[in-house]
Amino acid sequence: MKLHYSPGACSIGIHVILEEIGKPYDLSLVALKDGAQYKPEYMAVNPKSKVPALDRGDGKVLTEFPVIAFWLAKSNPEAGLIPSDFEGEVRCLEMLDYICGTVHPHGFTRQFRPGNFSFREEDHPKSVELGKQNAQKYFDTIEKGWTGGTWLLPSGYSVADAALFFVEYWATRRSGLSLPPHLDAHLKAMLARPAVQRTLAQEGLAA
Amino acid sequence: MKLHYSPGACSIGIHVILEEIGKPYDLSLVALKDGAQYKPEYMAVNPKSKVPALDRGDGKVLTEFPVIAFWLAKSNPEAGLIPSDFEGEVRCLEMLDYICGTVHPHGFTRQFRPGNFSFREEDHPKSVELGKQNAQKYFDTIEKGWTGGTWLLPSGYSVADAALFFVEYWATRRSGLSLPPHLDAHLKAMLARPAVQRTLAQEGLAA
Ligand SMILES: N[C@@H](CCC(=O)N[C@@H](CS)C(=O)NCC(=O)O)C(=O)O
Ligand SMILES: N[C@@H](CCC(=O)N[C@@H](CS)C(=O)NCC(=O)O)C(=O)O
Repeated sequence: MKLHYSPGACSIGIHVILEEIGKPYDLSLVALKDGAQYKPEYMAVNPKSKVPALDRGDGKVLTEFPVIAFWLAKSNPEAGLIPSDFEGEVRCLEMLDYICGTVHPHGFTRQFRPGNFSFREEDHPKSVELGKQNAQKYFDTIEKGWTGGTWLLPSGYSVADAALFFVEYWATRRSGLSLPPHLDAHLKAMLARPAVQRTLAQEGLAA
Repeated sequence: MKLHYSPGACSIGIHVILEEIGKPYDLSLVALKDGAQYKPEYMAVNPKSKVPALDRGDGKVLTEFPVIAFWLAKSNPEAGLIPSDFEGEVRCLEMLDYICGTVHPHGFTRQFRPGNFSFREEDHPKSVELGKQNAQKYFDTIEKGWTGGTWLLPSGYSVADAALFFVEYWATRRSGLSLPPHLDAHLKAMLARPAVQRTLAQEGLAA
């Protein structure tokens, strides 16, 4: 099994999940800052030019964060990373989709790649500002809907926590945003997990 | 069960799935063009202010297109709308996420709501143009990776087809784009399905 990742990109959430599972895997660097995602070698792996992509070792590559997370959790039931009942599983997927499909692109991609969201250099600060406002609004939605304890889902720690982690990490380490109470406590709890600490160290990032 | 929808919005894909299943359900109109999604009544249903949202009749609302589609397909196995093996299920989710998380926002929302993607009125045509280019690129990616026959997945008709349908419908009916061969044939096959015809008629849309 091999994870195609870029340091500090959203792939870090899948990296955390692999560390939680604890089975051997390899890392393959796709340097987004050098445009490696658009080179033919990587497009043969993932024609969508995105990380994360998981080479499962059966010759088949899986893409899309929520789906990789779901597949890893379901294929490694002993790790207990997804609720065991169907309703819990569905709520886990709902959180994964909200974080990866809304919070990530409309909160953070607007900040980190303003050129994708405004056509003029002088408008980039507006894109950054809107991204921050959106992120804050999405975090408030998650805070208000919080049904868990320390972890996002009431059933306990799951792959949804690894997704929430990467946006919380971006918010506090890259965007200078502050988090509402449940999310702030959640980020602290994530940073205390050995799997998260190993992941950050392997990607060369500060805790 | 009640589907919160807006005519011609992506919720039409869930509407198709409900018609395929054929059990009784209600429709509740959320007029996006009047901003009904931001009114307190609807925000009490879905604080994210988006359609589709599915009120399941158990007092619980489910959001996110891929997750609603997954839940409906799995809860109604007799309708045969999702592959019965785990690998097929995962590939179905992967397609749902690509269509709803990439093709929809970066292809079509850029065209339909250019104000969300450019800060100046005079840049709106650039957003529309980029959306069209993106949509064409994403459709080509789906075309090249096509593993099905008439339908998107090799196992046959599934909820992923209902997702592909709404972006194909937008492409041809609203954007004036032409589709690559597999998708063109797919759209024709979808339009021939009674469930699709009933859905379009109920939403007041032309075939
Ligand atoms: N829909 C994809 C999106 C992943 C994504 O946006 N990845 C970013 C890194 S955080 C990326 O690869 N960006 C490269 C690019 O857009 O050029 C998923 O959920 O996995
Ligand atoms: N992540 C959501 C996105 C749904 C979405 O973008 N819906 C659009 C209609 S096509 C919407 O409700 N837009 C209203 C708005 O943004 O104001 C999903 O997959 O269900």
